[in-house]
Amino acid sequence: MSKPSIPQGTRDFSPAEVRKRQYIFGTLKNIFELYGFQPLETPAMENLVTLTGKYGEEGDRLIFKVLNNGLNMQTDEHKAKMTTEWEKMLQRPYATPVITERALRYDLTIPFARYVVMHQSELVFPFRRYQMQPVWRADRPQKGRYREFWQCDADVVGSNSLVNEAELLCIYQSAFHQFGLPVSIKINSRKLLAALAELCGMPEKMTDITVTLDKLDKIGWDGVATELGQRGITDEGIAIIRRVIDITGDNAAKLTAYRQLMAANETGLAGVEELETSLRHYGLLADAAWTGSIDIDISLARGLNYYTGIIVEVVCSSDQVKMGSIGGGGRYDDLTGLFGLKGLSGVGVSFGIDRIYDVMDELQLFPAHLNTGSKVLLLNFGGENEAYAMQILQKIRHAGIAAELYPDPAKFDKQMKYANKRGVEYVLLPGDDERKNGVVSLKNFTTGVQQTMPVGECIRVLGGQ
Amino acid sequence: MSKPSIPQGTRDFSPAEVRKRQYIFGTLKNIFELYGFQPLETPAMENLVTLTGKYGEEGDRLIFKVLNNGLNMQTDEHKAKMTTEWEKMLQRPYATPVITERALRYDLTIPFARYVVMHQSELVFPFRRYQMQPVWRADRPQKGRYREFWQCDADVVGSNSLVNEAELLCIYQSAFHQFGLPVSIKINSRKLLAALAELCGMPEKMTDITVTLDKLDKIGWDGVATELGQRGITDEGIAIIRRVIDITGDNAAKLTAYRQLMAANETGLAGVEELETSLRHYGLLADAAWTGSIDIDISLARGLNYYTGIIVEVVCSSDQVKMGSIGGGGRYDDLTGLFGLKGLSGVGVSFGIDRIYDVMDELQLFPAHLNTGSKVLLLNFGGENEAYAMQILQKIRHAGIAAELYPDPAKFDKQMKYANKRGVEYVLLPGDDERKNGVVSLKNFTTGVQQTMPVGECIRVLGGQ
Repeated sequence: MSKPSIPQGTRDFSPAEVRKRQYIFGTLKNIFELYGFQPLETPAMENLVTLTGKYGEEGDRLIFKVLNNGLNMQTDEHKAKMTTEWEKMLQRPYATPVITERALRYDLTIPFARYVVMHQSELVFPFRRYQMQPVWRADRPQKGRYREFWQCDADVVGSNSLVNEAELLCIYQSAFHQFGLPVSIKINSRKLLAALAELCGMPEKMTDITVTLDKLDKIGWDGVATELGQRGITDEGIAIIRRVIDITGDNAAKLTAYRQLMAANETGLAGVEELETSLRHYGLLADAAWTGSIDIDISLARGLNYYTGIIVEVVCSSDQVKMGSIGGGGRYDDLTGLFGLKGLSGVGVSFGIDRIYDVMDELQLFPAHLNTGSKVLLLNFGGENEAYAMQILQKIRHAGIAAELYPDPAKFDKQMKYANKRGVEYVLLPGDDERKNGVVSLKNFTTGVQQTMPVGECIRVLGGQ
Repeated sequence: MSKPSIPQGTRDFSPAEVRKRQYIFGTLKNIFELYGFQPLETPAMENLVTLTGKYGEEGDRLIFKVLNNGLNMQTDEHKAKMTTEWEKMLQRPYATPVITERALRYDLTIPFARYVVMHQSELVFPFRRYQMQPVWRADRPQKGRYREFWQCDADVVGSNSLVNEAELLCIYQSAFHQFGLPVSIKINSRKLLAALAELCGMPEKMTDITVTLDKLDKIGWDGVATELGQRGITDEGIAIIRRVIDITGDNAAKLTAYRQLMAANETGLAGVEELETSLRHYGLLADAAWTGSIDIDISLARGLNYYTGIIVEVVCSSDQVKMGSIGGGGRYDDLTGLFGLKGLSGVGVSFGIDRIYDVMDELQLFPAHLNTGSKVLLLNFGGENEAYAMQILQKIRHAGIAAELYPDPAKFDKQMKYANKRGVEYVLLPGDDERKNGVVSLKNFTTGVQQTMPVGECIRVLGGQ
């Protein structure tokens, strides 16, 4: 028998890891609920037709497809039909309806849009939902990139109000504040990017401009300028872009400068206006304790063909770790249009759970108590002492204290080794003397101090109710 | 565009449904932790070779297989190779390594065994784990049977102690007590079933006898006797089985009768002994408040080829609903042997989450407060009043109260309709007067009473910290 293994790019989560992940999910859930968002869950499998064509050609290739069951080909006719389908598949490998009609969820956004369209008559709009579920992508696995990973999204659909933008910024700030994770939140507007292309006299080149600008951090201005030239932007256009990028200062200063520069451009002015209003709302809603910065960054362009208003990205600002984006989002004007429901605007943000986990682990930001399971282990001295131990155990658990009895009367050393590895805070020793006197001996595993006391007292020491 | 849909046998969970499901998962999680069980999560996809051959021929057919990605067949050589594989697949449709090498999790037990074997050197035994994750089966969907459904398992491996059996019975009792769900827990021992076949002089017919006996509830004794005859059990054997089945009374009476009947049968006596000890341990560990009955039932035979000791099944005992098993489990002596680690005994129980949900929903056992989202909706009267509302909103949320602002200054009726549909308890009306006086008007949505008060007082009324 070969050694068992799991598929490349997937992970088992050990008890300690699950507890840390539950801490992240639980914190986010509480924040979403505080902000009036409602939980939604969709199936792991979607119809293939729901997903294909929604993530670009590359995305279509990375969708995990589920083989149709019942491929039992019992009759020659069926076999012949399947073979014909197979031959078609050899021509068009990603559109193979008879081989596969279902696929694994690729993100949470498309299933959300599909849900909203299917349930439009029952839902009350604006609909604020959060969703925390795994997604699957047949990407090449590498450090920090998995084939099964978790997304955590909060969206509001059915409202154009910029109050939503401000609330989502608050959710980001509140979450990273609670995690103790220093972040920098960058915002931009798709409208400013469109206006920039118009200023250059090349509105049709917006994608080229923004895709290139997005690399500014990585390749610097010289690299950007070269690539812009290669993509057919005129020297004059490049000069304008340079001028816009060179605008520095705080958000107010930037907005003033953009407003002047785009004075004659309606789209640009709308973008400036929207960012200004969102930030003003944010100022009213924000908690004084939050420390993460929010900065306008005109080079930010993520998910361009998707967003229509604000664009947001969160990066970890600690110098101790190197990590890309740990969150992002934006406004999209017609997501449900993909499924036939037009004119429903939405805005949402996403948390990159796996990356947030990695950063928090590296910076040791998880609360220490998360890794404990049982608070106390009762040693098992067999016979009547075992029965006595079970009676004590019942009382301790009844008081709400997580506790275990070593299930066998094994050697003392073996039981103590188990207690140590399990990381319990206390060990309880129910021996002959304790049983006869109706008391317990409780040993603090950290200090080594052992004390004999009545059961009620022991439960108080352990912190029971 | 065709109307969007989801695959047959899968479900979307609406906010109200997710909250109820979270109540079930949360209750079970707290109990597992109280009993010293640790959380584990495994990937949705396993290697196909890990799963095949573990669930019988029918199981193999019902496993959802994931199509290999990268079936892009760019070269003629690759195409030729794939075509050869396809031709092989036509012969052996369920063993198709080049088409599919991964499959969706079919249960939580095999992945758990696989995990234990892979991590045996890091784990400390006895290892007590719980796991609550979806599984997928290509079964024909019908009422109460889904293609994506949730399992929730608690197992202890690496201990032969019958204390574990007792603890798992406690976990069942505690859980259904907390759910308010009346249950009957049936227990049996695989050893008693083996002894019964030996008593009939046909040890090789144990499977035939138990599979038939398992139908006693459905087809009655006459049906069972007929089928036993058809399966080759002698008339004398059938008479012995009848005698065993006719033994009634409480558990102690049954055990005494079995002990007499099986006086000369070592396996049978061991089975009697084990049930007796498990029940004695249970008596010491049990909470007086629990009301579910635990009854020995010699006709219980679930998952026979798997279990080696105790067998457990939970059924809902309310006369108001008709529902089969909502939980089950037992001891297995060599699960990890499938993956090369011999001699590690385990015992576990499983909760049928989807059925428990359906029964609780029908009996209206979910706490009423679960379906509420935000406690208060702040109406939006636009302009300066909107800004004032946001300041109040910040304070309310800061106090830990779930709250929303209607994001647009829509018509009063529209906003009130939203409040009603969302089921909020209070509506807050921040109008001109309130803003000028720095107070708020809070309307109780149930009583209709509206009162004007300072913000601090409002937060107290809403129950904030």
